[in-house]
Amino acid sequence: MPDRNIIRSLFVETPSVPGNLGKVATAIGMAGGDIGEVETVQVGPTSTMRNITIHCDDHEQLEQVLSAVRELGGGILLHTVSDDVLRAHEGGKIQMKSRLDIRSLADLRRVYTPGVADVCRTIQEEPDKARIYTSIGNSVAIVTDGTAILGLGDIGPLAGMPVMEGKAALFDRFVGISGVPILLDTKDPDKIVETVKQISPTFGGILLEDIGSPHCFEVEARLKEALSIPVMHDDQHGTAVVTLAAVISACQSAGVQLKEASVGQIGLGAAGLAIARMFRAYGIERVYGADKSEVAKERLREFGGEPVDGLSQLMERADIVVATTGVPGLIRPEWVRPGQVILALSNPKPEIEPEVALEAGAAYAADGRSVNNVLGFPGIFRGVLNARAREITHPMLVAAAEAIAGYTKKGELVPHPLDPRVHQEVAQAVETVAIQQKSSIQ
Amino acid sequence: MPDRNIIRSLFVETPSVPGNLGKVATAIGMAGGDIGEVETVQVGPTSTMRNITIHCDDHEQLEQVLSAVRELGGGILLHTVSDDVLRAHEGGKIQMKSRLDIRSLADLRRVYTPGVADVCRTIQEEPDKARIYTSIGNSVAIVTDGTAILGLGDIGPLAGMPVMEGKAALFDRFVGISGVPILLDTKDPDKIVETVKQISPTFGGILLEDIGSPHCFEVEARLKEALSIPVMHDDQHGTAVVTLAAVISACQSAGVQLKEASVGQIGLGAAGLAIARMFRAYGIERVYGADKSEVAKERLREFGGEPVDGLSQLMERADIVVATTGVPGLIRPEWVRPGQVILALSNPKPEIEPEVALEAGAAYAADGRSVNNVLGFPGIFRGVLNARAREITHPMLVAAAEAIAGYTKKGELVPHPLDPRVHQEVAQAVETVAIQQKSSIQ
Repeated sequence: MPDRNIIRSLFVETPSVPGNLGKVATAIGMAGGDIGEVETVQVGPTSTMRNITIHCDDHEQLEQVLSAVRELGGGILLHTVSDDVLRAHEGGKIQMKSRLDIRSLADLRRVYTPGVADVCRTIQEEPDKARIYTSIGNSVAIVTDGTAILGLGDIGPLAGMPVMEGKAALFDRFVGISGVPILLDTKDPDKIVETVKQISPTFGGILLEDIGSPHCFEVEARLKEALSIPVMHDDQHGTAVVTLAAVISACQSAGVQLKEASVGQIGLGAAGLAIARMFRAYGIERVYGADKSEVAKERLREFGGEPVDGLSQLMERADIVVATTGVPGLIRPEWVRPGQVILALSNPKPEIEPEVALEAGAAYAADGRSVNNVLGFPGIFRGVLNARAREITHPMLVAAAEAIAGYTKKGELVPHPLDPRVHQEVAQAVETVAIQQKSSIQ
Repeated sequence: MPDRNIIRSLFVETPSVPGNLGKVATAIGMAGGDIGEVETVQVGPTSTMRNITIHCDDHEQLEQVLSAVRELGGGILLHTVSDDVLRAHEGGKIQMKSRLDIRSLADLRRVYTPGVADVCRTIQEEPDKARIYTSIGNSVAIVTDGTAILGLGDIGPLAGMPVMEGKAALFDRFVGISGVPILLDTKDPDKIVETVKQISPTFGGILLEDIGSPHCFEVEARLKEALSIPVMHDDQHGTAVVTLAAVISACQSAGVQLKEASVGQIGLGAAGLAIARMFRAYGIERVYGADKSEVAKERLREFGGEPVDGLSQLMERADIVVATTGVPGLIRPEWVRPGQVILALSNPKPEIEPEVALEAGAAYAADGRSVNNVLGFPGIFRGVLNARAREITHPMLVAAAEAIAGYTKKGELVPHPLDPRVHQEVAQAVETVAIQQKSSIQ
């Protein structure tokens, strides 16, 4: 979901007189740019230097913003424009590091030959010990074929690498998991499945990422069947977990009893179908869904949902509406029913602006800006790896969503994704369910 | 090559009177153990505490060593025996780490969405930029099917993981490369080749590791053909590079003109054949080889070497002899010719003990203890990645061997593997040749 994804740092000098930063900010805003951080670098007697981070939709808008600042005059100078995002990516965002020092021959003999041979034999005799004496039990492959990278579409695996590295960086920083990107040189489901199977002994789990629909369903189902380690397609289930968490919070804010309510899912792509499944798994009886695709509607029926034919009918029947269509303004204000909860999640423009929905009578409305799947996957995988679970089940995902919702501050939709506690809460919730499910099988 | 690979730390208390450490050391040595490090932990007025690291061939010998120390008496106490090697392996030796901090929403927007989308598009438009803005150009897959792990044989990929992690740890510590173990769930050459091809966009190079003979030849050749990134089977070419370096040093010590000499390679397995090829690439005309296998001898002929039928004939004709058979005592002293240079590299026991060879008239003799392939692969891959070379060629490997030999102290066989300079020397030598070869192609 591209969302104001052109980011630049403007190094701006203004006279040290009140009101000048306001002029700059107004110029940026009027030209369509958003301001992120403002860092004051130097305050002198006559002039002040600041780094201003701006977000734009595209390069054309960026040029308009830059021109607007340059034209201000009155001693306001735009010195440099730097692309901190590209700079941050130089050399890549991740690196495989040794966890041990290798400073002496004794270290070398412990880490490598001859000492390592004894560890190899220990694992040969008891394969389960690989979980203890290797990184396998803490590693997750982040696998993509590049067919659905963010909202950019089929741009190929190479161009998708920055996203995979981003996920690996978050795995490391949030929950200490070793995330290993794997770019596949094929879009053929058979070959994807075969390749992931062949390399699977290396990992404790598989995160499928930005794989297009509909082949993502087949790939995930076949890999779950074939492997005895957890497999999850994040664009389906990670997104669904965070969406369910947001809906739980929204219903609490609106005073709606979610489990007794009817839910309508607009858009039955990979994410939309997974959200509908998640509602069913959460215990909601009436889950309606609308989509142009008959195949998608058939899938919804398989998951226990009920397809409806038109958007107005869906809006008529659903107490809670979730939209993931990518079509801005799809939901007409006149369809909104008083007391409805509406999450229009498409980026950068939602299916209905929250203010419009509220004006039309909705009890609660939000767009997708804060519904970030960063809240889901790190804790989910931490939980299943801790539990040594063999799969990720819907009860675990529901537990993850409830943990996120339970940790959300009153009045907010989801927690701050950089709060380390939220990932621990998710991990514990998932681990608890995983261990219960394990013992109920035995 | 397993080489005294049972390592333990003995925590020993002795009376603070001279001669007691000698008693302990003698007891260990007489029972067959080697002493690595001795660390004095505490010196008191009456007793001294030490950590003594010992190396043994097997668990039986270890028990004998422990009994010998326990039986010493006279105030000498063996308090604990700890397995530092296993302890060092707990949790694995490597971890994928974020190179960037993620502390604010601004960081998150740079590293992940929405900022990352712009980086993805940059790479989509100019795929070469993936080398700059991702970790791909600094990453090497360390691929094994587990069929020839060290000298332990076909113990499977899972039990081989500690070796792969060891290589990744060395990549990181010596040359800052991100080494990514890939364990393959197949021994079928077709499937190995297909799988590595499918995941190859993720990496800047492929290190094939501990893949058995003869399928290692086919796998390497087909991958080199199919991929436009460097591919190297370390057990062949890494070993051959370090061996050539050792032979260059040995000849300098013995005053032998290597390029005019004749060389005999005893044992034409994967390593032996690669060593023979390396001698040919170095410019040696007469490279003889002996092996029981007719197929291996045929391969030697393809590489420009000359098979001979018996060991005694080979010893008769070769000025320099290299043995990699794994058969202790294979070379009879009566075969040794005066002035010969003999490297009997098999571990733990060489084909002829250096003292025996020297007594029989050899000008120089050594075993394989110090010929560690750790000296080769890190710098070789650093060099080709720096040069963005599309393959690893024999001139690059020869340059690596010459760099190692050039950096060896007079009288020694190879440099100390923990001297960071040696890896930089190898990298520069390889990079230089790679860039020359690139420009000569253009």
